[in-house]
Amino acid sequence: MSLFDGLKNTDMRVKLPVVCFIWELAMIILFGVFIRYNPQADAHYIVNNSNTTYLNEFYFRYPSFQDVHVMIFVGFGFLMTFLQRYSFSAVGFNFLVAAFGIQWALLMQGWFGSLDYSTGKILIGVENLINADFCVASCLIAYGGVLGKTSPVQLMIMTLIGVTLYAVEEYIILTLLNVRDAGGSMVIHIFGAYYGLAISRVLYRPKLNQEKNGSVYHSDVFAMIGTLFLWLFWPSFNSAISNTGDGQHRAMINTYVSLSSSVVTAVAISSLTQKKGKLDMVHIQNATLAGGVAMGTASEMMVSCYGALIVGFCCGIISTLGFVYLTPLLESKLHIQDTCGIHNLHGMPGLIGGIVGAITAAAATEAVYSREGLVSLFNFNGAFANRSASTQGGYQAAGICIALAFGLVGGTVVGFILKLPFWGDAPDENCFEDDVYWEVPEEEEKSPLVGMTYTNHGNNKPAAAEPRMQEH
Amino acid sequence: MSLFDGLKNTDMRVKLPVVCFIWELAMIILFGVFIRYNPQADAHYIVNNSNTTYLNEFYFRYPSFQDVHVMIFVGFGFLMTFLQRYSFSAVGFNFLVAAFGIQWALLMQGWFGSLDYSTGKILIGVENLINADFCVASCLIAYGGVLGKTSPVQLMIMTLIGVTLYAVEEYIILTLLNVRDAGGSMVIHIFGAYYGLAISRVLYRPKLNQEKNGSVYHSDVFAMIGTLFLWLFWPSFNSAISNTGDGQHRAMINTYVSLSSSVVTAVAISSLTQKKGKLDMVHIQNATLAGGVAMGTASEMMVSCYGALIVGFCCGIISTLGFVYLTPLLESKLHIQDTCGIHNLHGMPGLIGGIVGAITAAAATEAVYSREGLVSLFNFNGAFANRSASTQGGYQAAGICIALAFGLVGGTVVGFILKLPFWGDAPDENCFEDDVYWEVPEEEEKSPLVGMTYTNHGNNKPAAAEPRMQEH
Amino acid sequence: MSLFDGLKNTDMRVKLPVVCFIWELAMIILFGVFIRYNPQADAHYIVNNSNTTYLNEFYFRYPSFQDVHVMIFVGFGFLMTFLQRYSFSAVGFNFLVAAFGIQWALLMQGWFGSLDYSTGKILIGVENLINADFCVASCLIAYGGVLGKTSPVQLMIMTLIGVTLYAVEEYIILTLLNVRDAGGSMVIHIFGAYYGLAISRVLYRPKLNQEKNGSVYHSDVFAMIGTLFLWLFWPSFNSAISNTGDGQHRAMINTYVSLSSSVVTAVAISSLTQKKGKLDMVHIQNATLAGGVAMGTASEMMVSCYGALIVGFCCGIISTLGFVYLTPLLESKLHIQDTCGIHNLHGMPGLIGGIVGAITAAAATEAVYSREGLVSLFNFNGAFANRSASTQGGYQAAGICIALAFGLVGGTVVGFILKLPFWGDAPDENCFEDDVYWEVPEEEEKSPLVGMTYTNHGNNKPAAAEPRMQEH
Repeated sequence: MSLFDGLKNTDMRVKLPVVCFIWELAMIILFGVFIRYNPQADAHYIVNNSNTTYLNEFYFRYPSFQDVHVMIFVGFGFLMTFLQRYSFSAVGFNFLVAAFGIQWALLMQGWFGSLDYSTGKILIGVENLINADFCVASCLIAYGGVLGKTSPVQLMIMTLIGVTLYAVEEYIILTLLNVRDAGGSMVIHIFGAYYGLAISRVLYRPKLNQEKNGSVYHSDVFAMIGTLFLWLFWPSFNSAISNTGDGQHRAMINTYVSLSSSVVTAVAISSLTQKKGKLDMVHIQNATLAGGVAMGTASEMMVSCYGALIVGFCCGIISTLGFVYLTPLLESKLHIQDTCGIHNLHGMPGLIGGIVGAITAAAATEAVYSREGLVSLFNFNGAFANRSASTQGGYQAAGICIALAFGLVGGTVVGFILKLPFWGDAPDENCFEDDVYWEVPEEEEKSPLVGMTYTNHGNNKPAAAEPRMQEH
Repeated sequence: MSLFDGLKNTDMRVKLPVVCFIWELAMIILFGVFIRYNPQADAHYIVNNSNTTYLNEFYFRYPSFQDVHVMIFVGFGFLMTFLQRYSFSAVGFNFLVAAFGIQWALLMQGWFGSLDYSTGKILIGVENLINADFCVASCLIAYGGVLGKTSPVQLMIMTLIGVTLYAVEEYIILTLLNVRDAGGSMVIHIFGAYYGLAISRVLYRPKLNQEKNGSVYHSDVFAMIGTLFLWLFWPSFNSAISNTGDGQHRAMINTYVSLSSSVVTAVAISSLTQKKGKLDMVHIQNATLAGGVAMGTASEMMVSCYGALIVGFCCGIISTLGFVYLTPLLESKLHIQDTCGIHNLHGMPGLIGGIVGAITAAAATEAVYSREGLVSLFNFNGAFANRSASTQGGYQAAGICIALAFGLVGGTVVGFILKLPFWGDAPDENCFEDDVYWEVPEEEEKSPLVGMTYTNHGNNKPAAAEPRMQEH
Repeated sequence: MSLFDGLKNTDMRVKLPVVCFIWELAMIILFGVFIRYNPQADAHYIVNNSNTTYLNEFYFRYPSFQDVHVMIFVGFGFLMTFLQRYSFSAVGFNFLVAAFGIQWALLMQGWFGSLDYSTGKILIGVENLINADFCVASCLIAYGGVLGKTSPVQLMIMTLIGVTLYAVEEYIILTLLNVRDAGGSMVIHIFGAYYGLAISRVLYRPKLNQEKNGSVYHSDVFAMIGTLFLWLFWPSFNSAISNTGDGQHRAMINTYVSLSSSVVTAVAISSLTQKKGKLDMVHIQNATLAGGVAMGTASEMMVSCYGALIVGFCCGIISTLGFVYLTPLLESKLHIQDTCGIHNLHGMPGLIGGIVGAITAAAATEAVYSREGLVSLFNFNGAFANRSASTQGGYQAAGICIALAFGLVGGTVVGFILKLPFWGDAPDENCFEDDVYWEVPEEEEKSPLVGMTYTNHGNNKPAAAEPRMQEH
């Protein structure tokens, strides 16, 4: 494929609007047929509940929902702005994909979880919105693995299929197997990470131009906005759909504690593995979050505060070591080009989180939880009334495998779909470059940052410019 | 007016402090005379309510209030940082104007809405603070229309009169006519947009130097901080003062759904209307929000989720087309220089929102809302007990016209006041330039972004500098 | 000490990991021995409270906690990014120090305040997490005083001792003396500011290279992210641990009102004291927040809205004047190099806040508060049942002195510890420079901000580079 062909193919003027319109029109039709307000959001609510308005689910979940919402759009979006010349795509495509994804997630998750069988309608409320955000999170994780190398049309396809797979996998794990996964170490992080890595593997570009695959000073500061909002609101993420009362309270505390120790060990290992002990922003931006990922399954369990500390301690170390040693190996040996290091931030910590959850569940006793607490937390009701804690541990472990399988198999299939030549991805030499899909402002003549006017070469692609000043 | 005069006039050393001190002292006196805590915030509360503390209004409104607060200061402030050399003014004057405006709004809205007639005092609580933020939002929308062309003193005047007009208009529409407008499509967005556009029309500058009226790479990323926080928290904006319980719950869902579809269609039209299908950050920063504006009136109504999707769908399209085709026409034909495109983001979507609200209200039935729900939602109590849904629809439509009239007439009058020659606005050639009102750091010698030291021409206005490096 | 020694010493490869690991392992052991969930976060909660889950402390405090959490990590972190070449350290070391500090604070504050004497365990819940964030805030304030001049190891030591001192001081002031200080004007701001200033005094560097001690355009915009999130969420800070119900409600209103007037007067004085009336971003970034600091003690009292306005009015003025006139004097006369101006933002407003609190407490009457309100607000129970309002005022004043003494004495001692030569602080000429402790991306060849490639001198330390372009 010549450069000319490549550039021509990246023209989105027909493809992207067509995909957007078809999918959005489909959403309108499907919403019209299927989606209704649940009783807590319906105007009829007042008839029975005017004296207990304060018990509306809204008041128990909405603050957490908004925190999660910030994580999805600001957190993930800005975390990926670290690339020097790909910030528009990072934050913009994240926005597009998430906004589309939550609509499809409301439908898919609704069919599997909120269907009113008498009317055939999906009844939605605040908890559905949180779950839709969760679902989209898995696709955004996958986006991190292919950042800089895909067209927006490919991302829309990745998201459509990713959300679909997620809803099925979540239904199997959480509903059929009654596995607990409040913050989604398995259903979100393992699935999302291996889904993205499998896609990245199939889309391997041996001649990828890595020159722009790095940060500049201010893009690293922008990325810290993402890191911090993710870090801050992770306690809300892991507690948003926990049982009300002590469940949410405990899930939040465990996550807060685990995250705080990840920061300390990520800094330690970053310094230890770098020349002259200088810290690397990549580690600070990512490995500090590993403790939150790894608390995703066990957060609502009685894992104890020091248990949470230990999990965060280990994950900060493992995640940072992953960036230093494993990411280069994944590329050279397995041909996985993992732009954001999702294997280090979501893959490994997700696996650890799943295992911690399985062990903690297996070790649960009535002495620690009380009988009511155990039944309530693990939903040992109905068909699961006779399940023991150790059996629950086994099912938790099964959940890990299912999430992993869905990610790897689904991602491989999607990878081959995305490999078809007409989706408009950039040629190798234009990867990590906003200019392919965005009107990028010219700024040389009037940059506020430099204060010089002598560089008007009529060329706003710096890497291609000759070093003219040294021509004399 | 010569350049010299123009520059001299922009000296704020007397004008701005005088205005600030006079107005702030007036606030202190008026607060002292009029403002008291409402019973829910008064220490006497505990006498009667020690067992029902959890019913304090604070717990139903405060999380939403904080989201709205973020929108006003971070959302609006950063959205306007997109200009290459006007970020200090965008975020700084937004801060000043909003902080002053909320004080005056507490008084104005208090006199019209929270006055305790027995004592003559305004009793304030969290809902008043939300309403004050709403009121100020209309003035910040107007600021978007004149961004880069006004002095801080002019903005203070715009805000003082704007808040006053808003309080009167709001009282007529919401109280006298009993129109529902939970998220302010009419009272906030229509009023604010046409207020700003009318001012901009009167202040028309035929020779405006447009060179700096554009973005640079990083200023566009900063602006996305504003966009995302506005987008994220819009569900809180539209539900913050809705009826507690199902009202807030439903308003939030409708807004979330509408916003998500705006993003998809804004992206589609942006690509479709641009050369080579490249996306334009201006559209992503603004048109994605149109669905939130247009859900402002109907958000708490039973508009249905697919109805909300359709509204967002249409507004994403209309708003983006407005940026592409209408904004240039407004300038060339009507002499309205709309810096931020407030007509596209607030004007047209606000009108659509008002119309959608009128239709939805007119179509309301007891079957859908229940009798209690209908009475509660539309406040069919007291003087309005016999009003029918279709009559309500008519009043809703009247609200649109009133908001529009207040905006256009008020803005025109204010425009002529601001045209007086002594308010210190910048001359045409210095518009869109922070340097007029701010100490801008010199950065050439030691820029962290460039790493060169050879450009110390003693000149920190890049656009005016000669291309010295090519002089050899 | 030669430059070579200095550079060599700043190598953190052993020191920083050792400190991080030792301290984090100590945390794990101490958490294991001492920390447990409190009853509201324990799985046993459900046994007694399944019908009153909505009364779980979590729902009254969690939204405020998250706002405070944003202030600590995003607010303080980004506020300090204003330096042109120190943003990584500002936001990164803030992150490290705060994440470590909250762990140690949970322990220290737990021993003094949440110890269950029957079991010897510290029982934690959401209020403990808020208090830990508060405690860490004092250390981050101190960091502002030494910003740019200390190594991360020094910061870890500062934080370890700072948290320890804070817990003792807080116990004496709040528990033993029963002083009220909801938002910590005394225990947080006075202590933190004078702790930092005393350290800065001992670490005085007479030959400090001030060249990089200033901002550039975009670093000032980044800092506004910090300012705005601090400003926005300060009402949550001052109300987070107030009494539920009217206490939180009133604390939030007072802070909101006070902050709004600080903005107006800070702008006025900034313009008045600058050449040509141009505003200085340093004042806008800092002095606008002074009203929040000064409302820290009295926020939950019946200080009245106009009282809050007056406090904000005065503090906006005093804080800005401090930046203009006092900071240079502190350096030249007292040899205190206060990088962020913490004396202006936290020191003086904290003192004012303490005084306002003492006066307001002394003036409290049953007519204004009701008997129940007075007892509840000032905790006139048990040993304090017979304390009068005027006596309370005296104790409040004593609290000021204690906080000040702890800050000055503690800071002086810590300063001498930090002066030991092996902590790896940068030599004078490398202060305010991320490059000492961070891998800073090279960006000259491929900067997205400039679009030139001709500056590859192989040197990414601009200040050290010769002006090569003018060599011809």
